[in-house]
Amino acid sequence: MRVALQELRDHLAPIVDLRAAAAVLGWDQETYMPRGAIEARAAQLGTLGRLAHELFVAEETAALLAAAERETEGMEYDSDAASLVRVTQRDLDKATKLPSDLVAELARASSMAQQAWQEARDNADFSLFRPHLERLLALSVQKAQNLGYEEHVYDALLDEYEPGMTKSEVESLFRRLKSDLVPLAEAITEADRDQHPFLSLNYDVQSQWDFGVDIMRDFGFDFERGRQDRSAHPFTTTFSINDVRVTTRVHGDFLPAGLFGSLHECGHALYEQGISADLERTPLADGASLGVHESQSRLWEILVGRSREFWTHYYGPLQARFPDQLGDVNQERFYSAINKVERTLIRVESDEVTYNLHIMLRFDLEIAMLEGRLDVADLPEAWNAKSEEYLGQVPPDDAQGVLQDIHWSLAAFGYFPTYALGNLLSVQLFERAKEELRDLEDQISRGQFGDLLTWLRERIHRHGRKLTANELLLRAGAGQLTAGPWVEHIRRKYADLLGVKL
Amino acid sequence: MRVALQELRDHLAPIVDLRAAAAVLGWDQETYMPRGAIEARAAQLGTLGRLAHELFVAEETAALLAAAERETEGMEYDSDAASLVRVTQRDLDKATKLPSDLVAELARASSMAQQAWQEARDNADFSLFRPHLERLLALSVQKAQNLGYEEHVYDALLDEYEPGMTKSEVESLFRRLKSDLVPLAEAITEADRDQHPFLSLNYDVQSQWDFGVDIMRDFGFDFERGRQDRSAHPFTTTFSINDVRVTTRVHGDFLPAGLFGSLHECGHALYEQGISADLERTPLADGASLGVHESQSRLWEILVGRSREFWTHYYGPLQARFPDQLGDVNQERFYSAINKVERTLIRVESDEVTYNLHIMLRFDLEIAMLEGRLDVADLPEAWNAKSEEYLGQVPPDDAQGVLQDIHWSLAAFGYFPTYALGNLLSVQLFERAKEELRDLEDQISRGQFGDLLTWLRERIHRHGRKLTANELLLRAGAGQLTAGPWVEHIRRKYADLLGVKL
Repeated sequence: MRVALQELRDHLAPIVDLRAAAAVLGWDQETYMPRGAIEARAAQLGTLGRLAHELFVAEETAALLAAAERETEGMEYDSDAASLVRVTQRDLDKATKLPSDLVAELARASSMAQQAWQEARDNADFSLFRPHLERLLALSVQKAQNLGYEEHVYDALLDEYEPGMTKSEVESLFRRLKSDLVPLAEAITEADRDQHPFLSLNYDVQSQWDFGVDIMRDFGFDFERGRQDRSAHPFTTTFSINDVRVTTRVHGDFLPAGLFGSLHECGHALYEQGISADLERTPLADGASLGVHESQSRLWEILVGRSREFWTHYYGPLQARFPDQLGDVNQERFYSAINKVERTLIRVESDEVTYNLHIMLRFDLEIAMLEGRLDVADLPEAWNAKSEEYLGQVPPDDAQGVLQDIHWSLAAFGYFPTYALGNLLSVQLFERAKEELRDLEDQISRGQFGDLLTWLRERIHRHGRKLTANELLLRAGAGQLTAGPWVEHIRRKYADLLGVKL
Repeated sequence: MRVALQELRDHLAPIVDLRAAAAVLGWDQETYMPRGAIEARAAQLGTLGRLAHELFVAEETAALLAAAERETEGMEYDSDAASLVRVTQRDLDKATKLPSDLVAELARASSMAQQAWQEARDNADFSLFRPHLERLLALSVQKAQNLGYEEHVYDALLDEYEPGMTKSEVESLFRRLKSDLVPLAEAITEADRDQHPFLSLNYDVQSQWDFGVDIMRDFGFDFERGRQDRSAHPFTTTFSINDVRVTTRVHGDFLPAGLFGSLHECGHALYEQGISADLERTPLADGASLGVHESQSRLWEILVGRSREFWTHYYGPLQARFPDQLGDVNQERFYSAINKVERTLIRVESDEVTYNLHIMLRFDLEIAMLEGRLDVADLPEAWNAKSEEYLGQVPPDDAQGVLQDIHWSLAAFGYFPTYALGNLLSVQLFERAKEELRDLEDQISRGQFGDLLTWLRERIHRHGRKLTANELLLRAGAGQLTAGPWVEHIRRKYADLLGVKL
C-alpha cells in the first residue's frame, strides 16, 4: 500500500548501514587497531562518511520524502511512519547545507586527530595535538556557517547533539546552576573531610571486570546483543539495535574508575538496546539527544549505582571478591567513599557534585575559541587558569588537563554541555519513576531493576529519535528541563550522608 | 602530468576503502561480534558489497581506464601504472558480468550462512546449515553462468581465486599427484608408528599464545601494522598494508593446533605486510592468487616451522616454557612428533603428507555438487564415503566431517584446490631460495629469517597483484607449477626422519 514510505525506508537503510560500518571502524580504532593503520583508517572513514552523506543528500531522498509525506498525512504524530518522515526531513534540511567534501574532510581530519590526541596525551605534550585541533576548529566554524544559526555560531554546533537547544539557554541554565552549586559544593567539600585510602589499594583487574559485568547483566544488558571491551576512554557505540558495544578502562589501583565506567556506559547501552525493533535500519534507531542519552547513563551510574540502596544488595558480593581490601570496611564507609566530594582534575573520575564544574570550564573555553577570543596555542594556559578558577587547582601536566578528553579530537564542539543537561534530566526522570513505581528504592536494595528498566523502556528507550527531549520529558510527566530537582537531590543526599544541614 | 591515471587512482581508492571496511566487519564478525547481530551485519555487508560493486562497474571506471591506458602506453609491463591499468581492466571485465543484486545477495546470504555454519558445527547438526548451503550453491552457479566459462562451470569459480587455472588442469595435477602420493603416504604411515602423547598434555593457553607471538615477531611480523586475535577458524585479513590481522585458535590440550596455526597465518600476513607501500589504496594491494598466498603460509608454517633446523633454535625456549610437559622429551622426538603422519579427520590439523588428500576429497564433492550429480541433502553421506576412501575412516559426526571448514559458508567454491597448489608452490619457491641463499638452513637453525624474508619480499611480496602466479614463479627462477619438487621434498624429509627408503 504505502509504496513511497517503503521506498523511503529502502533508500535510507543502506545509509544507516554505512554509518554502522563507520561505527564499527571507529570502535575498532579505539579498541584493537594497530598504531600503523591510522592513515588508512582515516581514509576509510572519510570514504564511508562521504558516501553516506552523498546518498542522503541525493535528490531521490527529497523526492521520496515528499511522496512519503503525502502518504503519512493524518497519521498519528508518534507513529513510526510519520516520525520517520518528520525526523528525516529535519536531518535532510541540515545535511543539504553541508558539502560532501567538508563532511569527508571532517571525518578524515578527526580520525587523524584522534591518533594525535592519544599520542599527545601519552606524552603529556599538547603541541602534538595543537595543529589537529586548529584544523578541526576551523572546519567546525565552517560547518556552523554552512548550517546557519540565528544568534551564535555555537548554536549550530550544539544543535547537532541537543536539537533545539541554544548557547543562551545553556548559559542561563548554567548561571542559575552556578549560583546554587558553587556555595553548595563548597559546603559539601568543607564537611566531607574523611579520606578513604582503601579504594586505592591493589584490586585485581579481571575481578573488577567480572564484578562489573555481573551488575551489567543484572541491570538488563543483553550480552547476546552487545559486548564490552577495553579502550583508553570509555564509550558506547551502536552498530544495530542488536549490536551495542560498550568499552571501559580498569585501573588496578583505583576501584571506582572501572566499575562506575562500566555502569555508566551500561546505562547508555540499555537505551540503545531498548529502542523498538521496528526502527532497526532507520535513522530513528538512535537516542533523542545526547542530553537524554546522558540522563540514562547517569541514572544507572549514579542514582542507582552510587545509592545506599544499591550497595545494600551489592556490598556483600563486592567484599567477598575483595576480602583483603574491603573486609574491614563497613557498607556505610564504602558508601561514603564512593560518594566522596572533592575538587579533582579529571572529569570522568569526578564526583557528581563537582562534575558540572568541569563542564562549565569546557563550555567557557569552547565559546572563547569559537568567538576567536582564544587561540588554540593559548588553550593549555587558558585551561589551567579556568581549572584554578573552577576546581581550585592547576593540572601538573596537559595529560591531566587540556588533553584528558577525547571530544575535541572528534571535532565534537558543543558536546560537553549535554553532560550537564544529562545530569539534570536524570534526576527529573528518576524522581518521576519513583513516583510511579512506589517501592523502587526497595527493589534496588534487593538488586531488582526490572520495573525500572521497563519504565524507562516505555517512557524513553523504545521511542528512539521519534520524539524530542522535551516531548519525552513532558510525556513522562517529568516537567520541563530545569536545574531545581538536581540541586535538591544533591542537597538531600549529602545532608543525609554527611549528617549536616545544607 | 598523468591526469587520467591519477583520476583512475582517485576513483578506485574509495572502492578499496569500502572493501577494507567490509573486511573489518567480517573480521569483527569472526572475532568479537555478539550472536544477535548477525542479521544487521549481513545487511551491512550486503550494502558495502553492493556499493563497492556499483562504484566499480560505473561507466566512469571504463572511461578512466581507457584514458589511463593511453597514458601508460609504452610503459614497462610491471610498472605500477601499467599494472594498475592491466589488472583493473581484467577485474572490470569480470565485474561487469555480475549484476549488483547478485553481488549483494551473495554477501548477505553468506553472512547469514556463516552464523548458521557456526551453530551447525557447534551442534554437529548439518540440517541447520543445509538450506544456507543450497542457497549459496544456487547463487554460485548463477555467478559462474554470469561470469562465463569455456569448458566447465567450475572454471569460472576457480578463476576468482587462482586466475587462469582450470578444473582440467587441477584434475591432471591431482591425478599425477595422486599416483605418487597415495603409495608414498601409505609407505610413510606404515613406517611412522610411534605415538607422541606429550603433545596432548595440558599446555597453558596464554603461554602457547605468547610463544607463538614471539616467533611471529622473529619471522618479521610487524605488530605496529597488525595484530592477532582469536576466532573459531584461523584466518588472515587485510584492511590496509599497514593493518593486517591474523587470527588463531589455541587448544589447551593439543600444542600444535595453536602454534602452527599462528605460524601459518603469519606467513599469509608477511605477504600482505610486504606489499609495496606504493600500491596502498589500489586494487593491486593484494596477493597474486590464493595459491601464491598459501605458498607463503605453508612455507613459513612447514618448510621453516616444522623443519629440524628451526627446532634446533626454538626447542630450548619451548622446553623452558613447558618443562613439565617437555622436560623429558628430546628435540628429535619432538621433531618426529610434530611431523607425525597419520590419516586424520580434520584438514587444518592434518600433516603435510596427507593434507592434499583432504583437498582432493573436497574438490571431488564440489565438482559433483556443481554438476548436479550430488544434492546438498546427500552431502554428509557423500563426505563420509569420500572420507572412507581417501582417509580410511568415517567421521563420528558432521562437526568433524562436512561441517569442519568455513569455506562453503562463504560461498567459496573453487577455493580448496588453491591449498594444494600452495603446497606445491611453497616447495618450488623454497628450493629456489635455498639455491640463492646458500646458508639458509644454517640461518634458520640460528633463528635468523631476515634474508629469507627479504628474498620473498623481493621476489613475491612487493609485487602484490601486479604479476600473475606464473609470472612470479618464472621471474623467481622457480620454473612452472608442477608436483615433482613437492613429492621429492616429502620423500626426502620422511626417508630421513623415519630412517627408511621411500
